[in-house]
Amino acid sequence: MDKLHLDRHISRQFNVELEALRTQLLEMGGLVEQQVTDAVASIESGDTALAEKVIVNEDRVDDFEIELDEQATLVLARRQPAASDLRLVLAVIKAVRDLERIGDEAQKVAKMAIALSGEGANRRGATELRHIGASVLTMMNQGLDAFARFDAEAALRVVEADESVDREYKTAIREMVTYMMEDPREISRVMNVLWALRALERIGDHVRNICEHVVYLVRGLDIRHISLDEAEAKILNQ
Amino acid sequence: MDKLHLDRHISRQFNVELEALRTQLLEMGGLVEQQVTDAVASIESGDTALAEKVIVNEDRVDDFEIELDEQATLVLARRQPAASDLRLVLAVIKAVRDLERIGDEAQKVAKMAIALSGEGANRRGATELRHIGASVLTMMNQGLDAFARFDAEAALRVVEADESVDREYKTAIREMVTYMMEDPREISRVMNVLWALRALERIGDHVRNICEHVVYLVRGLDIRHISLDEAEAKILNQ
Repeated sequence: MDKLHLDRHISRQFNVELEALRTQLLEMGGLVEQQVTDAVASIESGDTALAEKVIVNEDRVDDFEIELDEQATLVLARRQPAASDLRLVLAVIKAVRDLERIGDEAQKVAKMAIALSGEGANRRGATELRHIGASVLTMMNQGLDAFARFDAEAALRVVEADESVDREYKTAIREMVTYMMEDPREISRVMNVLWALRALERIGDHVRNICEHVVYLVRGLDIRHISLDEAEAKILNQ
Repeated sequence: MDKLHLDRHISRQFNVELEALRTQLLEMGGLVEQQVTDAVASIESGDTALAEKVIVNEDRVDDFEIELDEQATLVLARRQPAASDLRLVLAVIKAVRDLERIGDEAQKVAKMAIALSGEGANRRGATELRHIGASVLTMMNQGLDAFARFDAEAALRVVEADESVDREYKTAIREMVTYMMEDPREISRVMNVLWALRALERIGDHVRNICEHVVYLVRGLDIRHISLDEAEAKILNQ
């Protein structure tokens, strides 16, 4: 596990503020993770009350975004952090935005859960939703964990997992198109499944972004836009 | 027009650095705008060479993102800006990310242009692509202009335009579903139109984000997650 030295400041108050940013980011992460969990459960079970809860809770995610963004900006203005402290504040600012987007996508899944409700578990697309939903939830859990522990290697494994979710997603979309061609009366319904799959895939992308922020924060490395092999080599050779 | 006082620093070098950030953001904006223009033109005309050019140029957009992000971080570390200078640097960091995403979406449109090529202009979905493409290009142009001139009111008009693009998009998607039901042999093809429409709508969302950063930068107001009427009232009552 990597170690950021957040505990070495002369100003005790500065430590408190940095630690508060991290704690609140993880708190927001916990809320968003619950939103994704509930959204996925609602689309699997057809539980519309649970889906409604996700839709209502989205406001809390938005409030969190604005508050945390403000606090991080205040820390920048008052404390003028440098080096790894500055990276932490910037990583929080960036991760907050990804978490808010994940909340948006969870809300889309919940809306599709309502549109699809009352159709039973054997409907077409159910398997694909279940698989991708489970993969994305695992990514979400491990991604937040990597942030909590400032663990660049764990973060990289989540980036890898996203590549496999993207492949699953492409296969699932092809399946949906086949279903539509086989039974055109199902087109509207399958489109709803397709939008839900799309939202789940987007959640995976945002979790991946968060993990890229973790790598940047811990190692000072920018691994966007390079291949996984290159990113691994960079991280392991440091 | 609003005025940010970027020219009042004791350190001449600091002015130069802030101005350079702004100039480079606009340069990146120009490149990304060209990508969107070419992507929209390629899907309308079926010009696959132009679409290939968009796909190749995406690397330049990615390079821009990494470089500008690094430079903005350096300005934060070295100059420790406060007040409107800090807001400028943060707005640049956030806008760079949106510009990069717009580049991604332009690339998706270009890929769909290749998939759809050789089908002639009368194909179904062509009208919808043309309308939404034109609206999004106007937004892009006016959004970058609002950033260049630090104009919060112009930025707000772009946010308004996004709401109308979102409505056009929803209507277009309903049309696509109708086309698929009328002629199931067309499903695969119409799905490509649908993905291109989706990418254009996402470009609108990112331009809207950039305009929200402009309002924050110029007025210090966070207008995310509030209604347009509330945002207008806030901006006009300042």
